[in-house]
Amino acid sequence: MHREKHGKETDRKISFDFRNMMATVVGDENGIAETMIDELSDEISRVDDNLKKKRERGNLPFFDLPYQDALVEELIDFVDRLKPRFENLVVLGIGGSALGAIALKTALTSPFYNLLSKPERKGNLRLFVADNIDPDEFNMLLRVLDPKETVCNVISKSGETAETMSQFLIMKEWFGRKLSKEEMRDHIIVTTDKESGNLRTIVEKEGYKDFVIPAGVGGRFSVFTPVGLLPGAAVGIDIGELLSGAAFMDTLCRKSSVWENPAYMNGTLHFLADVRKGKRISVMMPYAAALRDVADWYRQIWAESLGKKLSLNGETVYVGPTPVRALGVTDQHSQLQLYIEGPSDKVITFITVDQYCEKLPIPRLYPEIEGLDYLGGHTLNELIQAEQRATAVSLSKNRRLNCTINLPCVSAFSIGQLLFFLEVQTAFIGGLYRINPFDQPGVEEGKQYAYGIMGRKGFERKKEEADALPAERDRYII
Amino acid sequence: MHREKHGKETDRKISFDFRNMMATVVGDENGIAETMIDELSDEISRVDDNLKKKRERGNLPFFDLPYQDALVEELIDFVDRLKPRFENLVVLGIGGSALGAIALKTALTSPFYNLLSKPERKGNLRLFVADNIDPDEFNMLLRVLDPKETVCNVISKSGETAETMSQFLIMKEWFGRKLSKEEMRDHIIVTTDKESGNLRTIVEKEGYKDFVIPAGVGGRFSVFTPVGLLPGAAVGIDIGELLSGAAFMDTLCRKSSVWENPAYMNGTLHFLADVRKGKRISVMMPYAAALRDVADWYRQIWAESLGKKLSLNGETVYVGPTPVRALGVTDQHSQLQLYIEGPSDKVITFITVDQYCEKLPIPRLYPEIEGLDYLGGHTLNELIQAEQRATAVSLSKNRRLNCTINLPCVSAFSIGQLLFFLEVQTAFIGGLYRINPFDQPGVEEGKQYAYGIMGRKGFERKKEEADALPAERDRYII
Repeated sequence: MHREKHGKETDRKISFDFRNMMATVVGDENGIAETMIDELSDEISRVDDNLKKKRERGNLPFFDLPYQDALVEELIDFVDRLKPRFENLVVLGIGGSALGAIALKTALTSPFYNLLSKPERKGNLRLFVADNIDPDEFNMLLRVLDPKETVCNVISKSGETAETMSQFLIMKEWFGRKLSKEEMRDHIIVTTDKESGNLRTIVEKEGYKDFVIPAGVGGRFSVFTPVGLLPGAAVGIDIGELLSGAAFMDTLCRKSSVWENPAYMNGTLHFLADVRKGKRISVMMPYAAALRDVADWYRQIWAESLGKKLSLNGETVYVGPTPVRALGVTDQHSQLQLYIEGPSDKVITFITVDQYCEKLPIPRLYPEIEGLDYLGGHTLNELIQAEQRATAVSLSKNRRLNCTINLPCVSAFSIGQLLFFLEVQTAFIGGLYRINPFDQPGVEEGKQYAYGIMGRKGFERKKEEADALPAERDRYII
Repeated sequence: MHREKHGKETDRKISFDFRNMMATVVGDENGIAETMIDELSDEISRVDDNLKKKRERGNLPFFDLPYQDALVEELIDFVDRLKPRFENLVVLGIGGSALGAIALKTALTSPFYNLLSKPERKGNLRLFVADNIDPDEFNMLLRVLDPKETVCNVISKSGETAETMSQFLIMKEWFGRKLSKEEMRDHIIVTTDKESGNLRTIVEKEGYKDFVIPAGVGGRFSVFTPVGLLPGAAVGIDIGELLSGAAFMDTLCRKSSVWENPAYMNGTLHFLADVRKGKRISVMMPYAAALRDVADWYRQIWAESLGKKLSLNGETVYVGPTPVRALGVTDQHSQLQLYIEGPSDKVITFITVDQYCEKLPIPRLYPEIEGLDYLGGHTLNELIQAEQRATAVSLSKNRRLNCTINLPCVSAFSIGQLLFFLEVQTAFIGGLYRINPFDQPGVEEGKQYAYGIMGRKGFERKKEEADALPAERDRYII
């Protein structure tokens, strides 16, 4: 079920409430004083200038992704032709090539979507995102699918990603057992770099339909490219509305004043909470099951962008708050005890929703049991919102920092806003930390060890290094 | 698909490899020196004594849960009678009443289990654990289920849990629309306290089948009670083997020497890593999709048991490492950059698996592309294991603490071991922190605010308090 558009743009704006971050509410020991924000104003201007200059020069192309009408039309046309022919779309991708599509599907299709029949799905495709290489899981996926009804979208910018490419090889062979070469061509869609890489070579040789990941857009900023938009359209998400939401947020996030720009303000508060108040953990806790994978997407963009050893001028800094994904109300019964009574080292960001799709009344069945009767006559909607408020109050009373991003409803428009907001916030706080939020140098070495262990030519020395560690033996294994 | 039993018990033992935690491997700055463990030996003995005395006195009944042959037989008989009649089991529970069942299902049934037909499931029930009160999610769950084919297991020790009880009221009314009162009786199973609480009252009045949560066993230690075992048996898990695994681990965890007791050693190392080396974040990262919800279960037992404001003698301590759930290899493309280059504030616990259920070969399809050809001829199994090793080496070379719990295979026996291991480790480290790992005083106030907001009698003042916060207004909302 796709959430409806409704109302004027201004009524559909998401809001950012940071009252419970401030010293006036949670006290001086943990809270952020306005003076701290004022003291940072030169830094804020510097980062704002920098981002705007880079954007103008075309060095930050993620900023321009909300404006792609032609691509939206092309994708909708393309998936409209897929839908009558196929039942399933399998995305082969990992990290940034998977998390955007997963977040969009969870947010904007029905829960239990893949269990619905095709008419119940309004003709849209089931979506399976194969973002791991667990042999049992991938094997079982192939077993529950019929190759004739299945189309696969392999996504890797470099075409080098070992996990995705292994899955592609396995899946191509799997198709080949039931389909002719000619038929197979319609079952494979490639999303990759425009010019180079193994997947580009394969597209040119074998003639698959392809979509392009624009140059300069890294995986974790790619949700508004075909990486996220094609799977999104395939499950029936209004990707035009999604980009409209992102564009609307772009207008808000162009403002230079931190007091008017929600992404700058949230970046600033998180930065100050970390470096001035020692809050090194950033918990994202939506109170809507539909948003749980937005929290997982955030976990990637935050960790990979900000976890850095070196600053821009080469100093060793080892920065980066640790993002944690939580879910309200469920995690009240799992993590809240720690958030309230454990070390005061966290910022909790709630995501709340004013209007769910439906109201679910709680009936009054046991008037004689006081401990149940107070629930009757309310709705489940009221209960989830009451619990979120109670949690925020409880955290604040215990002087724990928390803030709230509120969505009028979960719609393509609001999700477009939310994801773009978080992208800008990430780029902005990266500027405050004075690191490069667009690279990921730390994972390179691990890939080389894996190449070595797998016997790839040129990585023999890495294998030797891996074999040498750890030297200690038996006493340290129980 | 239920993983097979195989081999002798000793071949089926899980192992704990802590080489990469030690100063001799990862260096003195971050690593744990043997002398630190030696210096803690009096504390270790004290905690060991304490646990054993409490166990003898019957004050820690979770220790005795592996030994319940009669209950196992009763549960198997009971679900064997459910299976021919029903298609779906819906568990209504939250936190400790849900996470064990979810962990067991994900670990020990097929991926995509709920998509399989009844014969493919060998007659076992589909399982839906409704552990949140999102109105859209719960509404859609009721919409995809047929009440005639559905049995519900409501789980709450106190019968006070607002979320679970609201769901129960809604679900009972939902049943009532299609079933007579007489019929409905067979569709509801209650798991609650033996003597008291709202659910006990309802069982007595309405005559539902009930199972008991033993006195003194808190939600997060309840996976080996009917809370976890009934849903487990319903999806076809060999719950006898599960308890055998737990009992086998119990023999290992009775050893007083920290060098022979994996739970004591892991507790000791995590304690030292936190208090001596500032590693306040504990990441659990299984390299098997089947184990991802074991990591979520761990997240609860670790956070709620250890996140405490007060020590046993009333000092304010604010302790508790923050648990984080990650998943290999997926999170190599999301979190690893942070784990390697960010602040050195984490311990990573890998969970590895020697033997997956099946081998998935990677075919050699492009001999002419060097960047793909090295993968061909290997299996996906080799790739996932190579990546885990590469990740551990890469972390260790960057002097980041990591350890590995290895399972010979994912089976009921090994999962029984693993969960019991983690329970003992939690109780043990709670002793080292000198806090009570079995209570959760911090969440009480939040519940009272929620009662107040929902208009429950006697909580009017809590509502006023909640309404008064935060006092700051508009300037802090963008």
